[in-house]
Amino acid sequence: MGWLRLRLGRLLDEERKADGLSSTGEAGGRMKARLLAAQIKRMKLSFSVALSFFSAVQFAPSVVGLPSANDHTWIAPGPDDQRSPCPGLNTLANHGYLPHNGQNFTIKDVMDAAQEAFNVHWDAILVAAKFGLLTRNDLGSEEYMSLGPLLIHALIEHDASISRQDVGDGTGDALHFNETLFSVLANSNPGVDYYNATSAGAVQYARLQDSKENNPYLLNTQREFVLRTRESGLYLSIFGDPLTGVAPKEFVNIFFREERLPIEEGWSKPTTLINSSTLMPIEKIIKRAANWSATSVCEPVVLTPGAVVNLGNATIPGIGVAADEA
Amino acid sequence: MGWLRLRLGRLLDEERKADGLSSTGEAGGRMKARLLAAQIKRMKLSFSVALSFFSAVQFAPSVVGLPSANDHTWIAPGPDDQRSPCPGLNTLANHGYLPHNGQNFTIKDVMDAAQEAFNVHWDAILVAAKFGLLTRNDLGSEEYMSLGPLLIHALIEHDASISRQDVGDGTGDALHFNETLFSVLANSNPGVDYYNATSAGAVQYARLQDSKENNPYLLNTQREFVLRTRESGLYLSIFGDPLTGVAPKEFVNIFFREERLPIEEGWSKPTTLINSSTLMPIEKIIKRAANWSATSVCEPVVLTPGAVVNLGNATIPGIGVAADEA
Repeated sequence: MGWLRLRLGRLLDEERKADGLSSTGEAGGRMKARLLAAQIKRMKLSFSVALSFFSAVQFAPSVVGLPSANDHTWIAPGPDDQRSPCPGLNTLANHGYLPHNGQNFTIKDVMDAAQEAFNVHWDAILVAAKFGLLTRNDLGSEEYMSLGPLLIHALIEHDASISRQDVGDGTGDALHFNETLFSVLANSNPGVDYYNATSAGAVQYARLQDSKENNPYLLNTQREFVLRTRESGLYLSIFGDPLTGVAPKEFVNIFFREERLPIEEGWSKPTTLINSSTLMPIEKIIKRAANWSATSVCEPVVLTPGAVVNLGNATIPGIGVAADEA
Repeated sequence: MGWLRLRLGRLLDEERKADGLSSTGEAGGRMKARLLAAQIKRMKLSFSVALSFFSAVQFAPSVVGLPSANDHTWIAPGPDDQRSPCPGLNTLANHGYLPHNGQNFTIKDVMDAAQEAFNVHWDAILVAAKFGLLTRNDLGSEEYMSLGPLLIHALIEHDASISRQDVGDGTGDALHFNETLFSVLANSNPGVDYYNATSAGAVQYARLQDSKENNPYLLNTQREFVLRTRESGLYLSIFGDPLTGVAPKEFVNIFFREERLPIEEGWSKPTTLINSSTLMPIEKIIKRAANWSATSVCEPVVLTPGAVVNLGNATIPGIGVAADEA
């Protein structure tokens, strides 16, 4: 079913392109998310911290994203569209609440899109959106961010995701949905057709245990834990009841697997505004169930692509190597 | 002389106000930097990390700053104008390259002001300016920052400053220029009338030693060192020769003491564009002379006012106490 939808979406997309009605951006001069990820890696190796802490380089063309269809129907990303490790932002782009090509949107655009599509108040996502602005360092990035660069490790993107691989030794795919890892969530809360805060916490625990056992480069401080918990709080609230955190499995699964709003399956935008006050009690339960412990108290700081400080003697392939000087 | 100028500036300012030509903003509804700092402290105590990692509260009125005089003459800040721990930004506001009231300017505004007043290219300050956006968390802060909130400890503001006290146990004044501390710089490079990269590095060393001996809450990681070095590189380049880092003492002293461009003393904006490439060789010398060593490899992360993570069991009065829960 999901596969069929994906095929149909792609065909539709190709048809639009053939008609000159492309909503996914022109091919020329734009880069796939994959190429962009490779570019990020190259940049990491080619700039020393001394040069680039407050420095910047030309990164991606500053082309304003073409608007998507105005009716917010789901359109699969085309080959030139950027997508991120975040299923929420990807869904907003697939439905045209953010530019369908995934490029050049502002912090305000993210706030407006979250409000319009999810009924999520700006106060629940403001800080994360601001950090997003750090993931590019070209001229234009003082205002615009794009989905592809959000892949940069340990700035927004984090380990122990419930739907993506850890970047690990540098070969892990932190960008694309991974059904094998997602099965932990898909198989959680057995016997009933909903997820809740307790099951979401248990999933966070299981995914982190996997990373602790298999990723020698795991970054797991309070920072990641608070971020991961906010993510869980959001998927429960958006696709379930924001006041109880009880969410139908079908809606949540479609969201993660297809990055689509399950409207035809019966979901509609919550009538309760989702904000930090509604999230707090749900996140409290998630945190307790996650039985979390830190791998380290603090960690290196990724300031922007190519600029990592506070690595010390550590080598973390996903974010580069220690600066050779001070 | 500096005192006289200050007095004159204040009188001029009061006169403008009496004439209804205030360039410093209306008194009603606006807060002094001091009050704002107190508010930041209160906020730190009143929000748990769990609540506020991605949360936000009403912080300061989103009033667009009134433009200053267009001829960029120096006007002292009035009682309702916000200023920051950064002499560079304060100088830009005093000369009207940023709003004279110190409020509600964008990252782009900082880039343009630095270019116009200092001939500093955006690539040398982009990341710092982006972090500035994190220092407020009200609606409007997705686009605008203000000078007062830049005082929040350990986000942009840092210990071992060459012109401000460490916040230390919470009572240190990290906002205002301090002549006693500045005397380390003022007395450096004796026998000649200029500072250079070697003397700037020696000043960084001396100031850090003072903090190491007297501030039990010192935050001194590579992050602060790279930032402090960039600051030194900038004052040498802006008030001296960007290609050699040799800067007349008189110009530098006026900049720090009065937050004024020493135009009537003979300074003019460098004709050489100051960017990360010109700064690199100068900063290399500064770093060597600073003989730096870290107090710790990594440190707590201040995300936005009231939201600190990765404190562990530490208590750092300047940035609040450890969260009581995960």
